[in-house]
Parts: sequence; structure tokens; C-alpha cells
Amino acid sequence: MSVVELGRFMDELAQASGLAILPFFRAQFALDDKARGGAPFDPVTEADRAAEVVLRALIKQTFPGHGILGEEFGAEHLEAECVWVLDPIDGTRAFIAGLPTWGTLIGLTRNGVPVRGLMHQPYLGERFTGDGHTARLRGPAGERTLRGRRCAELGQAILATTDPRLFADGAEAERFRAIEGRVRMSRYGADCYAYCMLAAGQIDLVVEAGLKPYDIVALIPIVEGAGGRVTAWDGGPAAPGGRIVAAGDPRLHEAALKVLNP
Amino acid sequence: MSVVELGRFMDELAQASGLAILPFFRAQFALDDKARGGAPFDPVTEADRAAEVVLRALIKQTFPGHGILGEEFGAEHLEAECVWVLDPIDGTRAFIAGLPTWGTLIGLTRNGVPVRGLMHQPYLGERFTGDGHTARLRGPAGERTLRGRRCAELGQAILATTDPRLFADGAEAERFRAIEGRVRMSRYGADCYAYCMLAAGQIDLVVEAGLKPYDIVALIPIVEGAGGRVTAWDGGPAAPGGRIVAAGDPRLHEAALKVLNP
Repeated sequence: MSVVELGRFMDELAQASGLAILPFFRAQFALDDKARGGAPFDPVTEADRAAEVVLRALIKQTFPGHGILGEEFGAEHLEAECVWVLDPIDGTRAFIAGLPTWGTLIGLTRNGVPVRGLMHQPYLGERFTGDGHTARLRGPAGERTLRGRRCAELGQAILATTDPRLFADGAEAERFRAIEGRVRMSRYGADCYAYCMLAAGQIDLVVEAGLKPYDIVALIPIVEGAGGRVTAWDGGPAAPGGRIVAAGDPRLHEAALKVLNP
Repeated sequence: MSVVELGRFMDELAQASGLAILPFFRAQFALDDKARGGAPFDPVTEADRAAEVVLRALIKQTFPGHGILGEEFGAEHLEAECVWVLDPIDGTRAFIAGLPTWGTLIGLTRNGVPVRGLMHQPYLGERFTGDGHTARLRGPAGERTLRGRRCAELGQAILATTDPRLFADGAEAERFRAIEGRVRMSRYGADCYAYCMLAAGQIDLVVEAGLKPYDIVALIPIVEGAGGRVTAWDGGPAAPGGRIVAAGDPRLHEAALKVLNP
């Protein structure tokens, strides 16, 4: 499959998952309603599953030899050269709260290295894509190349993290606060959207912990494609997840690593 | 002016302010760029001012006897029976970070009581409107009536606040943590969008402090129009700003007041 065909296939994945998810976004239900079986109706889980079923079916039909790692339905053939890494709804809390800052993450690894990534926000009609060399946004305002902002100093940086309560232990929280104390502004609650805004030159730094591979793999080729850098806090590869630091400017990434590893 | 004409005029205000703001949203600039005069380019301030100039001009032309209170250009004729209360960009941090969870707030008070409110998110094409009796959303998915979700218990509630660091003193922060410790889930970073999602039945409770009148006046007729309740923490009127608590279900509002006033 050519690069163009692969791009088209990933667009097909985005479109199909968006159609599966959108009926559940802002679906009206009462918190004390019970489904007939007695379990409460949980729109984000329903949407997550519906989308992952569609994504897996399309991938298996088109690439029967590829592996798949997904948030809802686990791992298949991770020994394959090419593995798709899927998070149908990254940002479940935003989704539940009706906020449009969640996204569908579709990543492709080759021999364990993320080579293609797509973030789709179907309510906004935005698609962020990257291949490690270039990154693009197609959205309501048209299509453009993404480029991280020049920002070498922590003191000038806009920092984002999904939730400061997600740092598991005292040492993690302390390192995060050390970074937060030095930046110009910090912003909570953006999930995958923060990495895309980093690629778009709006946010300079993202610092998180406790990520799963499917939370980050699709975002790596987007951030790197925009000229940014994304690694583990210790400078190792970001693809396994865990503690992640991303910067739109590699100089800022270096400055952040120094604070995270005193 | 009839109710229908007033609605059309407010739509005109929304459209004009959106056209003034959008060119600045996600505008590309380097953090170390300087404008010719030596001052750094600040897109959110530029957008705020451009929009408020347009709003004030339209209001003065149409209602020369009305007063205006705006975030950027202050107060004029607050002694008038009808006063417009304007915040061109509520959620400046979201705007700066490229996130679409900011909004333009346009409120109208009569003898100090908020009677009409509009929240406009021009990037999403969403307009939330309310008159204290009904509330509506017009957006990409069509038009619908808004209704707060039934949710009587704190333990079932989804709580939102813009930033937990905005609680000014220890006592405020402690009361917020007491609420946060009892709810099902809390979410940071939504600004005016949180109140609109409360009216839409997605968020159950918003607890904030340090608000200005222009941060809240336009949202009061929307929340109340959706059947919710919004007051100061002490149960007094919300229109002056300060410490604000809003709930989609009046029973939840009562439960929250008990925790906020132990």
C-alpha cells in the first residue's frame, strides 16, 4: 500500500469511528436511569466500544497480517511488523462533560516505532495527522501544515497537563510542580488535544504521567512531524507510555528534562 | 423592541463579535516576536478589544439609552434601566492555548436583574441562549431546548471549575475541596462552557470564586432557563459575581449550599 493509499485508509478509519461515536456525544440520559439489564447507561463506554469494533473490523479486512492494540478489546498479534494502536475516545472525562476536547487516536507502529498518527475530533471536524516528518491539520478553517512554536525558555512556555491529580506519587507530583512553578501559564484538562495544540504552535509543553501506549502512540508522529520532541521523563522512547514530556521546541524539551531529572 | 427583534439583535451581536475574534484564534506568532512598537503581540487582548468595540458600537446605535458594562472598556450609564454586560472572550487561557472552550458572553440586565443571556462559540458555531424561562442551543447538530439533568445527590454529580488554583484563600479552597471530595467526578478548565454544559445536562455542578459580573451575568438566564439554579455561595444573587455555585438540579444546588456554608 502506497503512502497515499495509507493516508486514505486512515481517513476511512477516522470517518467510520466518528460515525460510530457521535450519536453518543451529549446523548441525553438521567444519571439515575438504569438500562433494562440493571446496569447504568454509560455513553462513553458504549461509544468507545462501538468505534473500536468498527476500527478493528476495517483493519483486519484490509491488513489481515497486522497486529492491533486497542483500549477496549486488548491486543492481537503484537508480534507483527505493523501494529495499529487505537484509543477510540481519548479524553473520556471531557466526553462525559460534553466538552469537545476529546479525540480518536489511531496510530501505526512498524517494528515498535510509531510511524503514522491521526487524531480525529469528529464533533469539530478536525483531523491532525503526522508521519514524524510532517504534520497537518484539516479542519473547518481549511488545511495547514503544523509547526511547533519557537520557545526555548520555560519562563515563556505554556504548559498543559490533563489533570494534576494524575501524578501517582509524591515524587512525580513534586517534579510536575517544579516545572509548573517555572512556566508562564499552565492549563489543565486537554488530553490528546494538548499534544495537537503543541504541534499547532499554541501550547509549548505537555507533562503527564500514567499514560498507556494507546494514549500516546498516535500523537508521537504528529508532535515529531511538527518539529517537536516527545519522550519519557528519563529521555527514553515515549511509545510505551508512562511518564511523558512533549515540547514544540527541542530546546524547551531539553530544559524540561533537566527539571524532571534533577 | 419585541422579544423576537431582541433575539435577532443579540444574534447580530454574536455574529459581529465572532467575525472580529476568529482571525485571532490560533493566529501564528512566536513568543519572542515583538510588535513594531516594542510590545509583544497578544492575540487574545487584540481579539477581546476588537470584539468589544464592535459590540459597543452596535448597542449604542440601536439602544442609545442603554448602559454597558464590558471587560475591556469599563462601564457607561449603569444607572440605565437596561444594561448590557459583555465579556468578548471568557476563557482567555483556553483561547491562548488554542482550545475551543472559550466563548463570547452577552448579557442584558433590567433593573439589575439578568433577563437575557447568550454564549457564542464562533469556532464551533454554537449559540447558547436563555431568558430565565427557556434555554436553547443552536449548533452544528441543529437546535434544541436545554434542560439541566436530574441529579439530586452530590455523590452522582459531575463538578466543574475553571481552575482549582483560583480559590483565593484557604477557606475558599477548603470549601471547594469539601465539595470535590463528595462528587462522582470533577473537571477543570471549562470557563463559561461549563455553565452551558450544565444547562445542556452534561455537567451537574459548577463551583467558582473570584468571578466578575461580566463572567456570570449572561450565563444566569441560560442556567435558569434550563431549570437550574445559580447563586452566590451564601445563596444571594449571582449577578454581582464573586463566589458562584450553579446546579442543573435545584436539589443539588441546595445540597451544595450546605457543604459550602457548614
